[in-house]
Amino acid sequence: MGKRIAVYPGSFDPVHYGHLDLIERCLPLFDEVVVAVLTNTSKQSVFSVEERVDILREVLGDREGFRVESFSGLLVDFVKAKGAQTIVRGLRAFSDFESEFQMALMNRQLSPGTETVFLTPKEEYSFFSSRLIKEVHLLGGNLEGLVPPAVLERMRRQSEEGSGG
Amino acid sequence: MGKRIAVYPGSFDPVHYGHLDLIERCLPLFDEVVVAVLTNTSKQSVFSVEERVDILREVLGDREGFRVESFSGLLVDFVKAKGAQTIVRGLRAFSDFESEFQMALMNRQLSPGTETVFLTPKEEYSFFSSRLIKEVHLLGGNLEGLVPPAVLERMRRQSEEGSGG
Amino acid sequence: MGKRIAVYPGSFDPVHYGHLDLIERCLPLFDEVVVAVLTNTSKQSVFSVEERVDILREVLGDREGFRVESFSGLLVDFVKAKGAQTIVRGLRAFSDFESEFQMALMNRQLSPGTETVFLTPKEEYSFFSSRLIKEVHLLGGNLEGLVPPAVLERMRRQSEEGSGG
Amino acid sequence: MGKRIAVYPGSFDPVHYGHLDLIERCLPLFDEVVVAVLTNTSKQSVFSVEERVDILREVLGDREGFRVESFSGLLVDFVKAKGAQTIVRGLRAFSDFESEFQMALMNRQLSPGTETVFLTPKEEYSFFSSRLIKEVHLLGGNLEGLVPPAVLERMRRQSEEGSGG
Amino acid sequence: MGKRIAVYPGSFDPVHYGHLDLIERCLPLFDEVVVAVLTNTSKQSVFSVEERVDILREVLGDREGFRVESFSGLLVDFVKAKGAQTIVRGLRAFSDFESEFQMALMNRQLSPGTETVFLTPKEEYSFFSSRLIKEVHLLGGNLEGLVPPAVLERMRRQSEEGSGG
Amino acid sequence: MGKRIAVYPGSFDPVHYGHLDLIERCLPLFDEVVVAVLTNTSKQSVFSVEERVDILREVLGDREGFRVESFSGLLVDFVKAKGAQTIVRGLRAFSDFESEFQMALMNRQLSPGTETVFLTPKEEYSFFSSRLIKEVHLLGGNLEGLVPPAVLERMRRQSEEGSGG
Repeated sequence: MGKRIAVYPGSFDPVHYGHLDLIERCLPLFDEVVVAVLTNTSKQSVFSVEERVDILREVLGDREGFRVESFSGLLVDFVKAKGAQTIVRGLRAFSDFESEFQMALMNRQLSPGTETVFLTPKEEYSFFSSRLIKEVHLLGGNLEGLVPPAVLERMRRQSEEGSGG
Repeated sequence: MGKRIAVYPGSFDPVHYGHLDLIERCLPLFDEVVVAVLTNTSKQSVFSVEERVDILREVLGDREGFRVESFSGLLVDFVKAKGAQTIVRGLRAFSDFESEFQMALMNRQLSPGTETVFLTPKEEYSFFSSRLIKEVHLLGGNLEGLVPPAVLERMRRQSEEGSGG
Repeated sequence: MGKRIAVYPGSFDPVHYGHLDLIERCLPLFDEVVVAVLTNTSKQSVFSVEERVDILREVLGDREGFRVESFSGLLVDFVKAKGAQTIVRGLRAFSDFESEFQMALMNRQLSPGTETVFLTPKEEYSFFSSRLIKEVHLLGGNLEGLVPPAVLERMRRQSEEGSGG
Repeated sequence: MGKRIAVYPGSFDPVHYGHLDLIERCLPLFDEVVVAVLTNTSKQSVFSVEERVDILREVLGDREGFRVESFSGLLVDFVKAKGAQTIVRGLRAFSDFESEFQMALMNRQLSPGTETVFLTPKEEYSFFSSRLIKEVHLLGGNLEGLVPPAVLERMRRQSEEGSGG
Repeated sequence: MGKRIAVYPGSFDPVHYGHLDLIERCLPLFDEVVVAVLTNTSKQSVFSVEERVDILREVLGDREGFRVESFSGLLVDFVKAKGAQTIVRGLRAFSDFESEFQMALMNRQLSPGTETVFLTPKEEYSFFSSRLIKEVHLLGGNLEGLVPPAVLERMRRQSEEGSGG
Repeated sequence: MGKRIAVYPGSFDPVHYGHLDLIERCLPLFDEVVVAVLTNTSKQSVFSVEERVDILREVLGDREGFRVESFSGLLVDFVKAKGAQTIVRGLRAFSDFESEFQMALMNRQLSPGTETVFLTPKEEYSFFSSRLIKEVHLLGGNLEGLVPPAVLERMRRQSEEGSGG
């Protein structure tokens, strides 16, 4: 059996404690986890893709068994290019089950050997979502306890520079 | 124990019978209910925030124990500024439970003393939503039985003045 | 009893095997099925309304008991104009139940004699959605097995002509 | 095309206004509707199968286009024996979608030509269920407005005879 | 305005930290909260109704504004007898929304002046349920962190006396 | 890193093609998969636990990387005894998400190092459930296409021996 490689895709804009919890849970299950930052040009973003990759590397620190990369195009093509067999997604009671399932089955249709596995984050992170955190940030809310200090610090710097992304 | 004050937030664009039913159910539960019209500049609106405040005051009439105000920014900041402890939301079988829950837990995270309580409107109003009513209105459908006469009247005047927003 | 006529509305942009399966299941239940292509100008489309009507006629071929037409405005007005009593919708485990129900009840409110009936497509088509198929198409994914050859062929021609719709 | 016959199966223990509403909506869609009372010996019942058939005939009165019968065994076998092609089920926001879908797909697997169509009852009946009504009845609650007078009358008689079924 | 009294009904067999969290959230919203233990003779119970009332009183201790009582029969009759206007229920992402809604609407039908309000417990208690806790207990699992020490202590005593309830 | 061992628990009464599909998807993800048959004495069963273990071994045949065992007691205790870190569950659109999530979080509470991962079976198996298959079997329905021939054969033999359980 070759190396078991999984891809954990997301926009990570910004990365929050729910994402980090899921990565921690992922690491022991696979030989390598590729944290894949989606290059999504259409939505208004807090951080550029490069910043998001940097932040993820910074907060994941010296953990072993992961890589952070960005990707564009079809997820299943990226998965194959990395030699991975598995897509990892977090499934929360607050997830949109239907769209998660639809994507998982569509990805299987497009790439029959690729399996999606769902993990559940810690329950206190169950209501975290990048979209909601972005909204709170734009309205000036305090994000402590929701995102790691590295994100808070960069957001503060961004505000001082007078630019929102 | 001080006064029990609740905030019932929404876009109310337009207010419909489901909203009014919920406000009626709210009033006996609290000493004061602040009906809070969200100043939402991004979505295309039928009525301006000022008009929505006016319409709500008109249709609520001489009921006691409520105030209508507009707000922008974080809901929990508005709630604190009003001296309120409670956010009221309608929960219908047709609601997006996940997003309602996510918001309730996020608001608690941002303001630990603020509780969200959910009430259920009368079942014949269960399918009413401002978004859907707006769509029907734009396609020229008849809104009688969905919105109060004050809303119908203003919509008619708006059409005559040849402006849809 | 007069003729039993049903309307099956949708954007059909593009038509996929889930739609075709549903039309097959519809035909024996009614004397006539009007496949109604929504003239939706706001969303970015793969095919024009005229092309979608053409494609539906082509793929439905010599089946009996149906007509393909386009419509704009309120669905219930179109239904009445066709002398129909029934709206047909597919209901999948992956559907947005709430919005389907909300629409069905709103349509009944707007037109009390109009009934919505829900059918379930074959389970292997349960994750098909025009929106998702459009996304996969835009990212260059292979749509074989998802849409009929007539759609594939036109998409290929469109790409060669260097235009995405 | 032969006669379009549908089967509307249920325990109808007791029949409530939600059932009657659904039968009314069914009748114009088919040439004949067979209201099929499930002979379910395992659950504690309020009325015997014979009584339930009698009550249904009484409350449906002189409407045309229906028959009331009882059945046991596999539903799809009963459907075939009646020369029917369609099973009708009510789908409410309060339904157990999953189990309804599971049954519909299982019935299609067991009898590929048999289609299940779902209709939505009037929204004020959306919370009616025989199980809940039975519970309220056992606890002495007033069922007026939930079940037709014929059911109320028989329940009263049953209580006077000192027997709960 | 008279006293605002709410009833929080449940089986509380056993009471767990999710219940206690909900009661804490309730207390500031009402002048009096009646914690109402359902006398449910049909299901196998861990504790008798009397023990459950005792445990609730013990764990709620010297908090103010509540009473613990047992009840049987229709909940809405009990609510009226207590002079209460409101029923409080916890609504978790893991709740059975449909049955909660159905009960709320049925209770409103049976007693039009009685309102049900839903609160959300703390997210780390979101997966707690008496049924699941009972199962874990029967299989010998450790309930620390799930139920208060008073419950653990009584369970231990029960086991030593060689009786499971 | 030691061996990655997963436990796939279930009643498997009877095993159906949905289970087998899930086991196939599991095998490449782990070094060893323990298919764990729950010794559930309370529910009426089609096959004894021993028969279910035998059938699973027979239908899984010469695949590599799995073991079939029975267990009773707490699942997390069995998982630890096997040296496993992971519980595998199938999650279908027709699953009871809430109870699946509740169990996953409860198992994490009872055994913090144990992770539950969810996989999705092939969509044509999405409506398969042992409970429903058991019901169809009891009503004399044909189970071909739902369960493997080994199960059909044993059911036939059981019927000839005049015993249903």
